[in-house]
Amino acid sequence: MGPGPSDVHPRVLQAMATPLIGHLDPEFLAVMDDVKAMLQQVFRTKNDLTFTVSAPGSAGMETCLVNLLEPGDGALVCVNGVFGGRMADIVERCGAQLARVDAPWGQPIDPAQVKAALQTCAPKLVAVVHAETSTGVLQPLEEIGRLARDAGALFVVDAVTSLGGTDVRVDDWEIDAIYSGTQKCLSAPPGLSPVSFSPRAVKVLENRKTKVQSWFLDMNMVRNYWGAQRAYHHTAPVSSIFALREALRLVLEEGLEARFERHRRNHKLLRNGLEELGFEFVVAPQYRLPMLNAVKIREGLEDAPARRRLLNEYNIEIGAGLGEFAGKVWRIGLMGCSSTENHVNALLAALRKMLSLG
Amino acid sequence: MGPGPSDVHPRVLQAMATPLIGHLDPEFLAVMDDVKAMLQQVFRTKNDLTFTVSAPGSAGMETCLVNLLEPGDGALVCVNGVFGGRMADIVERCGAQLARVDAPWGQPIDPAQVKAALQTCAPKLVAVVHAETSTGVLQPLEEIGRLARDAGALFVVDAVTSLGGTDVRVDDWEIDAIYSGTQKCLSAPPGLSPVSFSPRAVKVLENRKTKVQSWFLDMNMVRNYWGAQRAYHHTAPVSSIFALREALRLVLEEGLEARFERHRRNHKLLRNGLEELGFEFVVAPQYRLPMLNAVKIREGLEDAPARRRLLNEYNIEIGAGLGEFAGKVWRIGLMGCSSTENHVNALLAALRKMLSLG
Repeated sequence: MGPGPSDVHPRVLQAMATPLIGHLDPEFLAVMDDVKAMLQQVFRTKNDLTFTVSAPGSAGMETCLVNLLEPGDGALVCVNGVFGGRMADIVERCGAQLARVDAPWGQPIDPAQVKAALQTCAPKLVAVVHAETSTGVLQPLEEIGRLARDAGALFVVDAVTSLGGTDVRVDDWEIDAIYSGTQKCLSAPPGLSPVSFSPRAVKVLENRKTKVQSWFLDMNMVRNYWGAQRAYHHTAPVSSIFALREALRLVLEEGLEARFERHRRNHKLLRNGLEELGFEFVVAPQYRLPMLNAVKIREGLEDAPARRRLLNEYNIEIGAGLGEFAGKVWRIGLMGCSSTENHVNALLAALRKMLSLG
Repeated sequence: MGPGPSDVHPRVLQAMATPLIGHLDPEFLAVMDDVKAMLQQVFRTKNDLTFTVSAPGSAGMETCLVNLLEPGDGALVCVNGVFGGRMADIVERCGAQLARVDAPWGQPIDPAQVKAALQTCAPKLVAVVHAETSTGVLQPLEEIGRLARDAGALFVVDAVTSLGGTDVRVDDWEIDAIYSGTQKCLSAPPGLSPVSFSPRAVKVLENRKTKVQSWFLDMNMVRNYWGAQRAYHHTAPVSSIFALREALRLVLEEGLEARFERHRRNHKLLRNGLEELGFEFVVAPQYRLPMLNAVKIREGLEDAPARRRLLNEYNIEIGAGLGEFAGKVWRIGLMGCSSTENHVNALLAALRKMLSLG
């Protein structure tokens, strides 16, 4: 019940233990096709360039930025937490010109500020975090996406924590590059980063003047392995991709809408219980993530000792605060297989006991 | 029996299926310490900065180069196959000045040429591939390492295919940065890259003037997660690290010397059998890798159809030739758990049948 990895279904664990086959074996290539087709459904996109980067979510973030940016390009990054800050850091490492729109931690980015910023710079891309895991904010995307499109910029979205837990509509929202992680609401083990690029973004990467600074993440090569050519690039993490396939099957068997509803339902249950226990949420109700609940640490509880007690006595992990929220905020995950009524009840009962209320 | 992934022991598969725990859970931090200590033994090093990159071997290669090189630095790369060529490519993506020493595919690098090259350039590092997976060449390292050291350069080694299958002596050979993969002679699933940096290399990365161009691979941050600070950087691939721990335990239970001897023994068995069947090795006997046997495709066999028949009728995968060896050479792996007398016998019998000799 931290910010991921979430619990994993036994079918996914079993898939992890599948005996190895080669990364160019026809059977494995068929698994890759399955994963691609299911990711298209989960991302709600027809983007042909939809696959999974062979490394965790941060590498997916880097994939999107290093492939679309060249030295000297402008990038407008929205920052209201750790992960927006990380995007800004990577933009600078690309030798690109960084412009920022900031919002206080715990609040969403104000589209009006994005609009204002776009009047003073003409960036190649606008980047924003959909589900800011460090603060618990769900960022509405449509308006910012429209502003980016109107300004002729690509729209880049971090969906690490949102994908599979709340609606993500790549085509409807005209997202040009998006990355996620497997260990959050998809409930597969950590280590892969699903990504998708729009035809517009593909055109940009095909027309680069310079080589992508990362060989490992260079989409112009990676796409030839995931595409029809099947050209060897690197050895894919075969077992993790087996597991992701199984996790995606589970997502689609449940159905996206039913899954989102389950995440909302358990979030409400947790919220009611936590508020009864005197916890206060960091984020205003309309911007709260259902899968990542950021609450101020309640009087009567000490941060590290209380988390340690939850872990040692109750076998429950919750997340500490990051950055300016360190020591002040807890992050309670209800992601994928960890979003159940039993998880909520177990945590609430443990907290009640620790507060001598139960 | 391709160039990896190799077969994996059931204990390792079972470890892959361990239920997930958090990447900052004290139990997982203890697993990381285990992995580090065992990697030090396998690398034969006391290097404190020894751990595993959260992505496959190519990302380990990139980790070593992007952390040690800054724009304008010189790098001398030895190229006698695909993987030396890949290092050269990455060096250029770092904005470094590339100098090359080349040898024909199938032959080792001649130290005399390295010596000559070092008289015309003063590189920050000299990089060489220990086991060139594309050609089957085992590169003697000691002399090149000494030349690099005498020239004041760091010595960077690709041990993707050699580690766990033939001797790799990081401290004795004064290697400053080394990377490997898990899916070859260590017989863990693909997806991780064990690396080790000498104190000399650590000093270089501590004294960089510019930021590392990759956020994900920036050792100045990654080391704070693997080190005492345990600072969150990215979500580690928990399951794969469980599996690597089990694979390393198996390596050390067998013992390094016994494991190397097993790889040599099965290589000889395969060599004798293949030569009896009329196959010719690409590499001269004294430079042959025991775990990756490159042979010219024998008359009477067609490349792709024969490999397809081996896969479909006998469930045996062997590797195609890469680059200039495509269509001409096969690469037969005897790595880790795939280096057994049974594997050798199964392949030889199948080939005999296909050649209508048995």
